[in-house]
Amino acid sequence: MTQEGNFPHEEHSTKRAISPDLEKILYNKIPLLDHGFIRVVDYMGNDSAIVQAARVSYGQGTKQVSQDKGLINYLMKHRHTTPFEMCEIKVHVKLPIFVARQWIRHRTANVNEHSARYSILDKEFYLPDPAHISAQSKNNKQGREQNILSTQEIKATLDILKSNSEQCYENYEKLLNLDQTGHLLDETKQGIARELARINLTLNYYTQWYWKIDLHNLLHFISLRADPHAQYEIRVYAEALLDVVKLWVPYVYESFMEYRIHAASLSRSQVEALKKMIDPAKFSEQEANLNIRELEELKRFFAKKQE
Amino acid sequence: MTQEGNFPHEEHSTKRAISPDLEKILYNKIPLLDHGFIRVVDYMGNDSAIVQAARVSYGQGTKQVSQDKGLINYLMKHRHTTPFEMCEIKVHVKLPIFVARQWIRHRTANVNEHSARYSILDKEFYLPDPAHISAQSKNNKQGREQNILSTQEIKATLDILKSNSEQCYENYEKLLNLDQTGHLLDETKQGIARELARINLTLNYYTQWYWKIDLHNLLHFISLRADPHAQYEIRVYAEALLDVVKLWVPYVYESFMEYRIHAASLSRSQVEALKKMIDPAKFSEQEANLNIRELEELKRFFAKKQE
Amino acid sequence: MTQEGNFPHEEHSTKRAISPDLEKILYNKIPLLDHGFIRVVDYMGNDSAIVQAARVSYGQGTKQVSQDKGLINYLMKHRHTTPFEMCEIKVHVKLPIFVARQWIRHRTANVNEHSARYSILDKEFYLPDPAHISAQSKNNKQGREQNILSTQEIKATLDILKSNSEQCYENYEKLLNLDQTGHLLDETKQGIARELARINLTLNYYTQWYWKIDLHNLLHFISLRADPHAQYEIRVYAEALLDVVKLWVPYVYESFMEYRIHAASLSRSQVEALKKMIDPAKFSEQEANLNIRELEELKRFFAKKQE
Amino acid sequence: MTQEGNFPHEEHSTKRAISPDLEKILYNKIPLLDHGFIRVVDYMGNDSAIVQAARVSYGQGTKQVSQDKGLINYLMKHRHTTPFEMCEIKVHVKLPIFVARQWIRHRTANVNEHSARYSILDKEFYLPDPAHISAQSKNNKQGREQNILSTQEIKATLDILKSNSEQCYENYEKLLNLDQTGHLLDETKQGIARELARINLTLNYYTQWYWKIDLHNLLHFISLRADPHAQYEIRVYAEALLDVVKLWVPYVYESFMEYRIHAASLSRSQVEALKKMIDPAKFSEQEANLNIRELEELKRFFAKKQE
Repeated sequence: MTQEGNFPHEEHSTKRAISPDLEKILYNKIPLLDHGFIRVVDYMGNDSAIVQAARVSYGQGTKQVSQDKGLINYLMKHRHTTPFEMCEIKVHVKLPIFVARQWIRHRTANVNEHSARYSILDKEFYLPDPAHISAQSKNNKQGREQNILSTQEIKATLDILKSNSEQCYENYEKLLNLDQTGHLLDETKQGIARELARINLTLNYYTQWYWKIDLHNLLHFISLRADPHAQYEIRVYAEALLDVVKLWVPYVYESFMEYRIHAASLSRSQVEALKKMIDPAKFSEQEANLNIRELEELKRFFAKKQE
Repeated sequence: MTQEGNFPHEEHSTKRAISPDLEKILYNKIPLLDHGFIRVVDYMGNDSAIVQAARVSYGQGTKQVSQDKGLINYLMKHRHTTPFEMCEIKVHVKLPIFVARQWIRHRTANVNEHSARYSILDKEFYLPDPAHISAQSKNNKQGREQNILSTQEIKATLDILKSNSEQCYENYEKLLNLDQTGHLLDETKQGIARELARINLTLNYYTQWYWKIDLHNLLHFISLRADPHAQYEIRVYAEALLDVVKLWVPYVYESFMEYRIHAASLSRSQVEALKKMIDPAKFSEQEANLNIRELEELKRFFAKKQE
Repeated sequence: MTQEGNFPHEEHSTKRAISPDLEKILYNKIPLLDHGFIRVVDYMGNDSAIVQAARVSYGQGTKQVSQDKGLINYLMKHRHTTPFEMCEIKVHVKLPIFVARQWIRHRTANVNEHSARYSILDKEFYLPDPAHISAQSKNNKQGREQNILSTQEIKATLDILKSNSEQCYENYEKLLNLDQTGHLLDETKQGIARELARINLTLNYYTQWYWKIDLHNLLHFISLRADPHAQYEIRVYAEALLDVVKLWVPYVYESFMEYRIHAASLSRSQVEALKKMIDPAKFSEQEANLNIRELEELKRFFAKKQE
Repeated sequence: MTQEGNFPHEEHSTKRAISPDLEKILYNKIPLLDHGFIRVVDYMGNDSAIVQAARVSYGQGTKQVSQDKGLINYLMKHRHTTPFEMCEIKVHVKLPIFVARQWIRHRTANVNEHSARYSILDKEFYLPDPAHISAQSKNNKQGREQNILSTQEIKATLDILKSNSEQCYENYEKLLNLDQTGHLLDETKQGIARELARINLTLNYYTQWYWKIDLHNLLHFISLRADPHAQYEIRVYAEALLDVVKLWVPYVYESFMEYRIHAASLSRSQVEALKKMIDPAKFSEQEANLNIRELEELKRFFAKKQE
């Protein structure tokens, strides 16, 4: 597949907003897992584009840079999400099919996937690194335990995955009646249609797609898929995308870490419990650590006796 | 408009899931503001439908009722939103145009609005109750102050709104060259097209629509629009819809109040500040108030020394 | 999986609109392929609900039944799609994973899929009927040829698919270290996590989901997936859904066949070519076959000399 | 509002794909109606980006330019819409509120609208050009007749619209208790909140927003809103956007004109009628005018006797 190579790119002149740090890695493959990657192929907007869109809403004139940061924090904290939708990114992703199946559940994105009805899939399948082969978690129905498998069991796992993957591909070629160079394997046979032969492949085979999404929905994707409860194999993609966000829109990145990734969401019962554990006299001691708005909000949440 | 009357309804037999308490108010107008209303005209699913969909995902057999409640709490707390999308509701809403303009920003819904290109709008406009006419808030750029206007200024406000609304409607009729009974006002004139005449009306005129939305997106709508920062006039609709949710899916309602409406979302800085205000010895005292999972989570958030 | 059984259903009383013919098959499994099915588990609205929503837009009073049909035809022909969004359906679907991968590309739907991170997949895989095993089409890069494979090649295909599927499942159990009754296969081993073991399965394994969609988007799905260019295995699902539409909203069904399925969309060049092939004198002969609007439209398209 | 000025723009260097003709008009206001405009503020992708995304799907290598055009035609004709979603555009639009109300019904777009809760609206309202003031159409319930109003009636219409608009604004200022320079009108009064005062304005007042949409959905918007049945005032915006498309993605533009704007969609009955009007012998005469695929398709549609 020719799309895999680093893209021949030239410098153009544009009047559009640019993100200097993202430009530096544009089209570069960021390798993930054993054969996967992401590479950014296009983007629209930067931190300033968000500020600009927000100021259309608020009707204010342009302010200096320090205020841009504050405005982005304000938007993030109060979940004013529409300005973040004003930035868009397009990435080329190569990923195992079982990861693609989780990924595609995020509906607010545009996708062009490589079609195995049109083309023959390459012989590339995912084998986990031994460090990531683990037992079923006992208390998390959808997770893995840490490091409790014997070296032998890990090796046996890899042997099974590898031999099944290879055998399925060998039979895929038999069903197509084509070898890797596109020649007939057996002159007396026709081979079956590509759309049917592919069903013999296992879920660890790689596929690839172009994926385009706005920044708000990208952050939502990352917050769900970079979470410790997400399956390891999709988490590495989400974390790589988080690194991209850091280059692309650095203010948004900081704000996202503060108000989403490291935030805590407490239920009513937890708020009530916490109230009983806090000495209200200590609010004043926190004045040095918090800005006035955040302090006032804390008091509002945790002042004694809520109805 | 004939749609406004309470709908002639009959009892039918169905094998579908029903919500007994919502059936009782089906088609009934719930009056809001001076001329507005909502009335539920159809719905799909109930608390059990959410549980059933979730159990397709988890592949578990049906459990007893007490567990349904726990599962719904689990889904709500962990933002597993797809099962809530399995319920759907359709409401007929009559609302001022300026409220409709805010409402329509919620894109994940289906809408059929009354068209003033096809039909002539009724002479119905919104006048705020004196208790809700207030000055611009000083510290909230998008809000109202509480009760600081003189009786005279409130009266003057109502006089202006009323006389302008009436005059605009009178001119609307002149532009159409039609009186309320559909007769020509002036035999020597044609009248202009409805789609053009309507532009002379003010934003407090009422429109109406059918609005259909899934439960997940309805809760999102309510959480934004029943918020104290939302404009009063849309808040009354959001609160009425929250009452509908309580009748329709009572377990979801309770869960939504616990994990959304009365929840607190803290930034990383607030978490850090709170850590310094808490005596860790008191965690054990809260065992009676919190279930074990929520207590463990609190400890995880607020245990001393985050990296 | 308990969800597969026909659902225990009772008759309830409701004031909601019902679709009598759809009620008759509610919860019944409609078998598709070798192990798949669809079964309708809930619905909202009927032909009248569409008419009612349209009349909110047009502000007209309720008319008699014969006019309902005309109005639905009008909406379908002129692609006034919002009234069709006022109906909603929920189906439980069991389908091979490679079909699920095509299906999920339709984004405007709600989905709860069985998760192989939580549960162990059943040993059920798709084997095509010999009549549907065909060679790659020569002139359609994504299709199958008709009937050109020898009986031996068909048999060889089935042997490969069957033996690979079975072997992958056997190894899936080894990876989990569990037999079909849930007992350990080997007491000295832990077994690996379900989320990882599943990647050894082939794309013809069955999954299942609850799928909820509005009527407009369902018709769009059907028009794309019941098309002769769609892969046979998804086409059978689309055709079964078309049968459901016929029971649910019979007027919409007729209208859909007339204005979508059997419609012809012509490019500008094709219109120009057709003009030269038509004798304008024959328009009048068609008056008996077409209603006046459709005839006028034909004249407009094919009158000599377009600019 | 500072956003209205032409944006101070600099030339940057980028590795992204560019559209040279669109760059030329970037940030330039294109005036529409009496006070409105659109101006493109950002874009992503060009004709080649669509081709590139399509070729990810089809797995083919890059071909020469002449084939790009053919591929775009193929995608447009067969409604393979996802590659067109790979381009995105952002426009700043100033438009009357009644136009905004129609526009916003297109849900698959991102919007940041100027908020009259935060800011005071300018005194700018739409008055139609005399040439576009017309009577209600007799046979089109949602349209205007051509030129049948007397000069006097047109003048009277403008007088009403103008005087009402001005009076409503004067009262808007009274309600706010602020003059144009931001000073109190009456020292003894507070003025009411902005969010409430605005409801006194008429629907012809201008608002503005940033609007971001992908190319596929933009074309859908244009096909509905540049249609002769659309209201004149939104049509001028749709037509201006079509001109933008022509600059941005010229191949797509040509294809869109051929397969959408000048296409004809025929019902089954119309196809049947047309069959009887065509002399099949004439198909061969059209070989010079149509490419082979389009000719074959015509034969398939119009060959005698369909079942």
